[in-house]
Amino acid sequence: MAPIQSKVYINVDLGEAYGNYKCGPDDELIPLIDHANVACGFHAGDPLIMQSTVEKCKQHNIKVGAHPGLPDIQGFGRREIKMSPEELTAMVRYQVGALQAFLTAANVPLNHVKPHGVLYGMMYRDIEICRAVYAGVPPGTRVFGLAGTCQEQVAQEMGLPFTAELYGDVKYNSDLTLVIDRKKKPWTPEETRKHVMSQIENSSVVTVTGETIELPVGKHEVSMCCHSDSPGALEIVKAARKMVDDFNGKMGY
Amino acid sequence: MAPIQSKVYINVDLGEAYGNYKCGPDDELIPLIDHANVACGFHAGDPLIMQSTVEKCKQHNIKVGAHPGLPDIQGFGRREIKMSPEELTAMVRYQVGALQAFLTAANVPLNHVKPHGVLYGMMYRDIEICRAVYAGVPPGTRVFGLAGTCQEQVAQEMGLPFTAELYGDVKYNSDLTLVIDRKKKPWTPEETRKHVMSQIENSSVVTVTGETIELPVGKHEVSMCCHSDSPGALEIVKAARKMVDDFNGKMGY
Amino acid sequence: MAPIQSKVYINVDLGEAYGNYKCGPDDELIPLIDHANVACGFHAGDPLIMQSTVEKCKQHNIKVGAHPGLPDIQGFGRREIKMSPEELTAMVRYQVGALQAFLTAANVPLNHVKPHGVLYGMMYRDIEICRAVYAGVPPGTRVFGLAGTCQEQVAQEMGLPFTAELYGDVKYNSDLTLVIDRKKKPWTPEETRKHVMSQIENSSVVTVTGETIELPVGKHEVSMCCHSDSPGALEIVKAARKMVDDFNGKMGY
Amino acid sequence: MAPIQSKVYINVDLGEAYGNYKCGPDDELIPLIDHANVACGFHAGDPLIMQSTVEKCKQHNIKVGAHPGLPDIQGFGRREIKMSPEELTAMVRYQVGALQAFLTAANVPLNHVKPHGVLYGMMYRDIEICRAVYAGVPPGTRVFGLAGTCQEQVAQEMGLPFTAELYGDVKYNSDLTLVIDRKKKPWTPEETRKHVMSQIENSSVVTVTGETIELPVGKHEVSMCCHSDSPGALEIVKAARKMVDDFNGKMGY
Repeated sequence: MAPIQSKVYINVDLGEAYGNYKCGPDDELIPLIDHANVACGFHAGDPLIMQSTVEKCKQHNIKVGAHPGLPDIQGFGRREIKMSPEELTAMVRYQVGALQAFLTAANVPLNHVKPHGVLYGMMYRDIEICRAVYAGVPPGTRVFGLAGTCQEQVAQEMGLPFTAELYGDVKYNSDLTLVIDRKKKPWTPEETRKHVMSQIENSSVVTVTGETIELPVGKHEVSMCCHSDSPGALEIVKAARKMVDDFNGKMGY
Repeated sequence: MAPIQSKVYINVDLGEAYGNYKCGPDDELIPLIDHANVACGFHAGDPLIMQSTVEKCKQHNIKVGAHPGLPDIQGFGRREIKMSPEELTAMVRYQVGALQAFLTAANVPLNHVKPHGVLYGMMYRDIEICRAVYAGVPPGTRVFGLAGTCQEQVAQEMGLPFTAELYGDVKYNSDLTLVIDRKKKPWTPEETRKHVMSQIENSSVVTVTGETIELPVGKHEVSMCCHSDSPGALEIVKAARKMVDDFNGKMGY
Repeated sequence: MAPIQSKVYINVDLGEAYGNYKCGPDDELIPLIDHANVACGFHAGDPLIMQSTVEKCKQHNIKVGAHPGLPDIQGFGRREIKMSPEELTAMVRYQVGALQAFLTAANVPLNHVKPHGVLYGMMYRDIEICRAVYAGVPPGTRVFGLAGTCQEQVAQEMGLPFTAELYGDVKYNSDLTLVIDRKKKPWTPEETRKHVMSQIENSSVVTVTGETIELPVGKHEVSMCCHSDSPGALEIVKAARKMVDDFNGKMGY
Repeated sequence: MAPIQSKVYINVDLGEAYGNYKCGPDDELIPLIDHANVACGFHAGDPLIMQSTVEKCKQHNIKVGAHPGLPDIQGFGRREIKMSPEELTAMVRYQVGALQAFLTAANVPLNHVKPHGVLYGMMYRDIEICRAVYAGVPPGTRVFGLAGTCQEQVAQEMGLPFTAELYGDVKYNSDLTLVIDRKKKPWTPEETRKHVMSQIENSSVVTVTGETIELPVGKHEVSMCCHSDSPGALEIVKAARKMVDDFNGKMGY
């Protein structure tokens, strides 16, 4: 299969600490990435952390998006909670608005919205949940999601610019969705390298059940997500950065 | 002493329900008031309640402000929590931003910010807390506070338009500050009437310790606060509305 | 079908206030009931409310059970949250232990455990969830559940004494499970009367889809649940009390 | 001044992780200590973490106490919250009861109660707060506190056995109280060594303001607290363990 048809960026979830609790080497990651998904206080993050994360992203001139999650710090937004569509919309609007206040104060534009954890998964499995979540996104704001799932379809329906995500450190199911665990398991550098290279060089990936599937990213902007709370996150992001830079250079993007 | 030198408005805290829990007869109060202070999810309110409260206020064409509180639903924002100035600023910015998202979605402007409960009290007792809280208010946004306290002084310092509040159903200390209880006690209609009339007709009030003090509201916009969670809130607001309307009419405001 | 074969008691969920928020006329209900299910702080209740609820139950000499729920005050324990079996067990153990401390201080025995809201529903729909929840119940402690569902089966497996519940103010599905709403709708007295009488006089009930099904309560202790947060809760409980007392008297229980 | 007149033990706060968030190298610390203060879910810890912490302590045969804190995960129990005496009592009772459930399930006795963070500080600064907190401790249960402060006095009043704490990694004020920070700063091994040796060899300590004060531990059981969330916690505890063992050996305790 063909290589990705557009420049590949890297996004990472940031600001997922909480009070005195740490999560991920944000300071080391920021210089390595293009897009930051900043937690908004429901699954992680608190006002002080949001504020300092926005400031650090500004210093390194990386783009900042909102990373709204389910209201569940203890479960880190990874326990499914059944909420009504109205609740989902209001909850996303609330969180994006909260981040917007820090962006406005720092004079940084909101680049995108990317829902967190199991909420992201609930969206690509249930189009009504997807519609409810995107209804809470400010009109015209870019969303990050999985091409070939209803995330792409609903973004198009609602006129939201769409960035197709690749996942550097998460396995895929054969329906293009992701295999999510409450606690991440470590990846070896070689596993990561193969996983990333296959996605960017061939627009395809070997699924958790062993098939090779095509990733229908088409002409969308593409951003590869690496997790900041994975064991060895920093090494994974460094390796992904190099592979992505080499690829972008080779392709002349 | 002289009557209040400007038109008197009425403000009420709204949207202080939480999930299935009710608080105050919002639907009955909205048609009676001028300014709504809408809870922002930290001491009360949740995203759905904020959204529906903003919509109801819009329908009745009343002005909407943010009502940020300490992060303490269980204590209803009435238990003092020692927070750093940076935390206070970030916490206020977060809450105002969250409300702003619902206002933007409803195409309603943010009229003002009025901190809730003990946070309001911490501000007029400690100028550093006041500065930290107002630092989280969007530049140029109107704030509601007590004239003659550091709330007025800091608003002036920071260039924030100031509305002087009167309290229809709370007693005053002789230093112009308020007597706050975790749970409100009922007022008789006659107590309320005397308390309100003295404030608007004479710019003065009898304090909890029996002195008569002047309320230095000067030329500021004036808004009288009545509580929605007091026993008999609806009757108090109806009575205050009538007194205020009579006063405004008589004075030609 | 035959009448219930044992004395019928009445249980009500109590202590479901939270901080300043009220929920249900507990003081009026306590004298009317036999079994109190006391909220343990996760879906409702807080330490002060638990303490005072236990004391009031003691004064009226009614039996007290723990009413553990999902960790979700905002959703009142009525939004399904996917938790691991280990989490469910630990969460139930925690809540029952917390209530036990107030019971010990008041020298009142723990009579039973009855899970709250959607957790109760998750149990009768999924036997593994049921096992996980009951694993958190102190050995030998009585549990309240629905006869004919896996709640009864697992109680028997684990050697927990079982009280079969009837529901005075909730509709049944044809598989003996309940129709749960996030917010309760009002029942007319006549609806309630028919619903209760059918259950106690005939061990049967007309389901939400119109069939008449038998309630297989067998020889278990029987307790009819009425909700304290329903509109008109007090009237429903008064009516149920009278019907139950008449029935118990007539049957010589 | 004279050496400590009884055997010196070491206690550490454990189980202060929360959901996916880590806090302190519990697994490495447990084999090094005598007394574990297990967080109870209000300032840190959650039911699963409490359960596994109790099990690990049991495996290493160390004594387990409850470590109740203010209800403030975000502030890690280090932001002062003004609560009524009744609330403090109920809150402590709740938390100790919750831990007791895990202890009972594991067949481990409750050894002691030691309040956490700023709550501990509020107690030695305000005797009424101290009385309220100890009123929530099960009768006759051992409490850990600072000798020479009202913690010791109230324990005696209320018939609670008292263990005098020394602090291996916290500075003292000249009134025998501690200098608490929201976030701990690192100590050098040499600083720690001097601080510990002075306390155990001379029953005295150099305060933050430079005076040498006597620690009036008398004949109480003595336990030295080291923090698990300090930078370099493991090295500090290892060093303290060696000093304490040498001291106990030399003194024949």
